[in-house]
Amino acid sequence: MDRRTFANRISQRIVLGGLLGSAVLGGSTAVAAEPNPAWRGTGDLGIVIERAVGRIQIIDTSARRKIGSVAGLGDLSHASAVFSRDGRFAYVFGRDGGLSKIDLLAGKLALRIVQAGNSIGGSISQDGRFVAAQNYVPGGVRIFDADTLAPVADIPARYGDAGQISKVVGLADAPGVGFVFALFDAGEIWVADLSVDPTQPKITRFPGIGKQPYDGLITPDGRYYLAGLFGEDGLAMLDLWQPERGVRKVLAGYGRGEEALPVYKMPHLRGWAMADGRLYLPAIGRHEVLVVDTRSWQEVGRIAVKGQPVFVMARPDGREVWVNFAHPDNSHVQVIDTLTQKITHHLEPGKAVLHMEFTPRGEAVWISARDDNKVVVFDTRTHRSVAELAADSPSGILFSARAGRIGL
Amino acid sequence: MDRRTFANRISQRIVLGGLLGSAVLGGSTAVAAEPNPAWRGTGDLGIVIERAVGRIQIIDTSARRKIGSVAGLGDLSHASAVFSRDGRFAYVFGRDGGLSKIDLLAGKLALRIVQAGNSIGGSISQDGRFVAAQNYVPGGVRIFDADTLAPVADIPARYGDAGQISKVVGLADAPGVGFVFALFDAGEIWVADLSVDPTQPKITRFPGIGKQPYDGLITPDGRYYLAGLFGEDGLAMLDLWQPERGVRKVLAGYGRGEEALPVYKMPHLRGWAMADGRLYLPAIGRHEVLVVDTRSWQEVGRIAVKGQPVFVMARPDGREVWVNFAHPDNSHVQVIDTLTQKITHHLEPGKAVLHMEFTPRGEAVWISARDDNKVVVFDTRTHRSVAELAADSPSGILFSARAGRIGL
Repeated sequence: MDRRTFANRISQRIVLGGLLGSAVLGGSTAVAAEPNPAWRGTGDLGIVIERAVGRIQIIDTSARRKIGSVAGLGDLSHASAVFSRDGRFAYVFGRDGGLSKIDLLAGKLALRIVQAGNSIGGSISQDGRFVAAQNYVPGGVRIFDADTLAPVADIPARYGDAGQISKVVGLADAPGVGFVFALFDAGEIWVADLSVDPTQPKITRFPGIGKQPYDGLITPDGRYYLAGLFGEDGLAMLDLWQPERGVRKVLAGYGRGEEALPVYKMPHLRGWAMADGRLYLPAIGRHEVLVVDTRSWQEVGRIAVKGQPVFVMARPDGREVWVNFAHPDNSHVQVIDTLTQKITHHLEPGKAVLHMEFTPRGEAVWISARDDNKVVVFDTRTHRSVAELAADSPSGILFSARAGRIGL
Repeated sequence: MDRRTFANRISQRIVLGGLLGSAVLGGSTAVAAEPNPAWRGTGDLGIVIERAVGRIQIIDTSARRKIGSVAGLGDLSHASAVFSRDGRFAYVFGRDGGLSKIDLLAGKLALRIVQAGNSIGGSISQDGRFVAAQNYVPGGVRIFDADTLAPVADIPARYGDAGQISKVVGLADAPGVGFVFALFDAGEIWVADLSVDPTQPKITRFPGIGKQPYDGLITPDGRYYLAGLFGEDGLAMLDLWQPERGVRKVLAGYGRGEEALPVYKMPHLRGWAMADGRLYLPAIGRHEVLVVDTRSWQEVGRIAVKGQPVFVMARPDGREVWVNFAHPDNSHVQVIDTLTQKITHHLEPGKAVLHMEFTPRGEAVWISARDDNKVVVFDTRTHRSVAELAADSPSGILFSARAGRIGL
């Protein structure tokens, strides 16, 4: 096949992608950007979510510049994304239930469906074959084919005598199995095993885990699943290597119970950081980062910080933990040295810092400053800004290297 | 720019790449494969080294098939490779000092230089800007621009009163700094800091670390550098977070001193596995895998295995450790459950198993069986073979996701 034929074939595939998308949507795919074909590696690509305008930017973390944008993605407040196994596609989960498959190389929308009325993020299976969305309305989890976005399975998350459907939170990929998630209304953790028949997930229920799980995370090795509880203190923990042991409560002192301040923003559990065998996590309502030993699951320290922490993120080498804060301290970022447990740097990247994303090996971190309409890139060795990119109310920043990581 | 113009421009770049390469080499670039242009993600690509014929295969780990091959790479015995930050290029280090930059998308050689007379592998800097090669002849380390392969710095690794140049082993990328490596003849560890001026690396020497370091590794977080010693028992360890503490000896019982059997093949230190806070490492000469607690650096267990272990590799989720063996047990692979420390599976993938590479999230492992001229892909959940690929005396298998990992 010569290059011309090849380009035509690719072109047809993209158009076909658009048609499939619009067929599902009823003809309203909105492809805003011009095609931006690029024959290049995808290991250094990423997206910046421009939440207010329903658009994402495609960025190149080597050149530190924008290389494209895709609009028409619906309500991107609280949006998140996962990446295809090959790093070419981003699956963006919108708050309005939209699931958009973005072709990062073409710089356009490949497929889009509206899979629910109110959605709160999703996950991609270990083998990259399935994308799963967790929903508030109608509740439950829906699983789609990662290539076509065709429905594969529906998990309504029913509970109680009346068979109500629970809101689902904390959806994560579980290695060797499928997905694990928490039921907000039911107070349960469910493991959905797709290994035998993806269209008929085998569900294992763990009831009575505590009141109102509001978010969850899986440790970077995929072993421990933890759900934060809104209705009581402590965390519900499931050891996925030994599920027969059931869910147990850890960190009984963690939660809103000991709150001394009004909670301006619930911290994001995905922001928890593992470094050197310890977990750093945002206290709820307090100006503290908690340090937990992951062998004993005991709290081993507290570090006073500038404000109420939202994201507490370990640099990929684990030497530093970067922290941002809720209003009114949300123009600040502090850096904790995990060796000394001291704050070593205090930065002010811009107004309303919403998210931070490290490059895969951690030489840089990208920080979104929503109210300054910019993304700032810091060199993590010098802790100085090395680049700025204009962006319209940026929130989440997500890099394609997540495709190769468990739990992201 | 339309697609046709774009394709032409890419085509020019590739040709230019070839010209640059041949200029350096003196006109002998050997581009064997036909161009195989592909507009695709690079996150699921990899290479298989066909050692006897100086060729690599380019493989797709999603489709589990070969998508190209590149020949003319010289002596690939003991060859290894690193990947560019964007995942598009593999840098293959040949035993003959050849350094070949392979374009995985084009399926051809982009650049090639012969940088030394006898080389033993290399590394790529955290930011992807520099490729470094460690040499036996003439010794020392040479650093090249990752884009052009132009020389950036030469570190001769001189030692002693006469200023001899040492063979260098165990070269690894050190986050925030540059590179760390061991001097076989000098018994030293050196840290080369490229952060201020890459053309004038600032060297910190750690002399007297022990006799004849023969290989080294950096832990996956980039914190601990360990050098294995050929001339005495124990390992030399440098904590790169606290280099002022100097190098200390750990695992005094580890080495050839207690050997009960002839050593058929020195184990590869890069094969050491971190899982759940423990390091699994191949005993030297004994049919055992050693378990080390990385908080205390004490040995906490030994697991009896089929033969003399060569590679001891953790599945990315850490639940399993896979082990292959030296002659005469080199058709076997055993799987250790890290929870129970027991062997759970015993596989015979083929004759002369030389290497194993896990997919980034660990759902599969690719195993080379040199004397059966094949690569076998196992599903790590079922422990069954799911694919086989023909290959000419395959040795190393390396996937592009290494680009995003420290120490690979």
